[in-house]
Amino acid sequence: MSFFASRWVDVPEGLLEVPEGGLPQGFRAAGVACGLKADGGLDLGLMVSDPPDTVSAARFTRSGVLAAPVLVTQQHAKLDAIRVVAANSGNANAATGNRGLDEAARMQGAAAMAGRASTENVAVCSTGVIGVQLDGRKVVRGLLDASAKLGPDDAAFTAAIMTTDAFEKRVTLRLELSGGPVLLSAQAKGAGMISPAFATMLAFVQTDAALEATTADLLLGVCVKRSFDRISVDGQLSTNDTVILQASGASGVAVAPESDDELLFGQALDALLRQLALLIVKDGEGARRVGRVVVRGGDPKGVEHVARAIANSPLVKTALYGGDPNWGRIAQAIGMALPYSSPLVYDISIEGMQVTSAGQSVDHDTADLAERVSRPEVEYWVGLPGDGAETEVFFSDLGHEYITINADYTT
Amino acid sequence: MSFFASRWVDVPEGLLEVPEGGLPQGFRAAGVACGLKADGGLDLGLMVSDPPDTVSAARFTRSGVLAAPVLVTQQHAKLDAIRVVAANSGNANAATGNRGLDEAARMQGAAAMAGRASTENVAVCSTGVIGVQLDGRKVVRGLLDASAKLGPDDAAFTAAIMTTDAFEKRVTLRLELSGGPVLLSAQAKGAGMISPAFATMLAFVQTDAALEATTADLLLGVCVKRSFDRISVDGQLSTNDTVILQASGASGVAVAPESDDELLFGQALDALLRQLALLIVKDGEGARRVGRVVVRGGDPKGVEHVARAIANSPLVKTALYGGDPNWGRIAQAIGMALPYSSPLVYDISIEGMQVTSAGQSVDHDTADLAERVSRPEVEYWVGLPGDGAETEVFFSDLGHEYITINADYTT
Repeated sequence: MSFFASRWVDVPEGLLEVPEGGLPQGFRAAGVACGLKADGGLDLGLMVSDPPDTVSAARFTRSGVLAAPVLVTQQHAKLDAIRVVAANSGNANAATGNRGLDEAARMQGAAAMAGRASTENVAVCSTGVIGVQLDGRKVVRGLLDASAKLGPDDAAFTAAIMTTDAFEKRVTLRLELSGGPVLLSAQAKGAGMISPAFATMLAFVQTDAALEATTADLLLGVCVKRSFDRISVDGQLSTNDTVILQASGASGVAVAPESDDELLFGQALDALLRQLALLIVKDGEGARRVGRVVVRGGDPKGVEHVARAIANSPLVKTALYGGDPNWGRIAQAIGMALPYSSPLVYDISIEGMQVTSAGQSVDHDTADLAERVSRPEVEYWVGLPGDGAETEVFFSDLGHEYITINADYTT
Repeated sequence: MSFFASRWVDVPEGLLEVPEGGLPQGFRAAGVACGLKADGGLDLGLMVSDPPDTVSAARFTRSGVLAAPVLVTQQHAKLDAIRVVAANSGNANAATGNRGLDEAARMQGAAAMAGRASTENVAVCSTGVIGVQLDGRKVVRGLLDASAKLGPDDAAFTAAIMTTDAFEKRVTLRLELSGGPVLLSAQAKGAGMISPAFATMLAFVQTDAALEATTADLLLGVCVKRSFDRISVDGQLSTNDTVILQASGASGVAVAPESDDELLFGQALDALLRQLALLIVKDGEGARRVGRVVVRGGDPKGVEHVARAIANSPLVKTALYGGDPNWGRIAQAIGMALPYSSPLVYDISIEGMQVTSAGQSVDHDTADLAERVSRPEVEYWVGLPGDGAETEVFFSDLGHEYITINADYTT
């Protein structure tokens, strides 16, 4: 199956998947088992961009409880010049206090050695259980091991950042720019604790295009807002979310600011991040179906509240899981999002079929609707009074597998 | 088992359960099957207070999408003089537009006939599926049937308001006041769509004490804030929530404003509503355990956000279901509730055992903690910076039964 499987992603012309995968020029990666995962699986990834003039951009969770690696990266790394990324799974190093900060700093130092970079060019990331101290000795030994295994493939790196993910989220793309072709590769993890912004989720993008740091930051910011910021698996904001874009410039093909190439590169990054975000939602801890809710109206805050309320409603999510066309739960979520606003005028359509007009049900073919909501992607449309504001949220369903995965995670 | 089973309810002296049940003087009730439930079960309840000077008080959902019966009751009933309550299950009469309002008005008219009251003394309530028109002919015929069956027992009435409830929530209490004994009886339904305030939940309380209308309103308001306003099953605010207190005065025992009797009656009503609320949480669509989170700090809004975030977190709820002492998810929910506030100082205790101090984990006996969180009631305590604000929320766990119940509810 093609990487770009969703109808909700616009893929620009000139952007092609590279079936054999691999990293863009200038990058090397590795993934090793350092003993953080009880099952002995890969749990420590190292990504290195060799060119000293590598530029980067980063985005992080907005949680009030930031994990130690997020704090260390924000405070002690040059976010526009990250050459080395070290990321572990099996332990989030969150809610670990000063000792956790020490371990994250130790990880940053060891990763700098492993990647032959200055510590200020190193980002560290962690994902896994919260509230358990990270065993820094394992991480340091693992980074030494990883430095000897750095190579042009990102499969082991991707496996090393996965936790409850059911499938890997990895792709290599080729984009034709005016100065020649460039490559983009990406690795992401995330299946739960996904919302209201981008989520217990780590995503790394590499390109050998030459970007200015301001361009990288601008494009990443815009694309994150249209992708990882618009998804919800379980409405839970994580302590560790991190997205990093690195540009090695090793292709020699520059993306000039405000050029057609910048627009094209931005479209490619947008398609890449949206599809990655959709894969995370699709992998939403046992999810069967992916929903998209689009809300339009006159009040931006109300539109946002309604979209989030629908995407996070366990009643809407269980109905999606069951393939149940229960639009009454959409109406309920709208009412919850806009308290004290009765009588509220709203329209609801599901998969293009209108079911409610001005708050009143509309006769529709229920058998046809039942068939439509049993497909892998289901789109909900809500119209509120007024005009000018519109938003979307992608969300997973809520099923038995989510319970099974989450009822017994630490023990 | 005694009705007052929870350690989180203070039962005043002089309040005793009446094991044989039954309604206070002045009240008659009935429950019939009128054909709204597909399985032919009881689905229409009628409660009548015969004394013409009956006083009452009521509270409703704050959803922006109010069900037709809520609108009709709010607009066309004297909320301080409700003599007759008609309540159906099997259909919420919500998101049903003008036709739904007509049907609710018709139900009010028929209930007035059935209870020999003026329509302005009639409240109507509905619960069940949203977005389907209510068949008013069935309701009218059913009310005629119910009027012939009115009697001193409330068992059939209670059964008629249940939907996904696994057990009935009904009790009769006897309270010794200075002027003599009075009775209180109550019937509630609710198992899902419960939050952020009192929920798809209907609760009816009758007493033969003589209350002034202002006293009834004051006491109900205070007690609802400490009970149905503090529970969450799935974080979903309903379109239909209604709580009604009726006082027939038929015992001849008056509760004078600002008297010791008023205090005692208030304490009894508080215990009654808190235990009913806890029963609704306990019945939270497949729930195994009930959680209570208490949050203290200096900022009332922050305290409320944190308590709600914990109570509504599917990660905290699945851990509670699994009997898993995963306090990292409490830390994550705190961070989510207070974005951009890192580094946040917080303490967490579970069942009296401190696990986090100033954001850092504290050594504790994990085996002992694991045993404590496997009990039927689990208490979480969170301390935030500052003083003066405190709140609590009761919540159910999230397990497989919730999915099974909700994945296929309309079809």
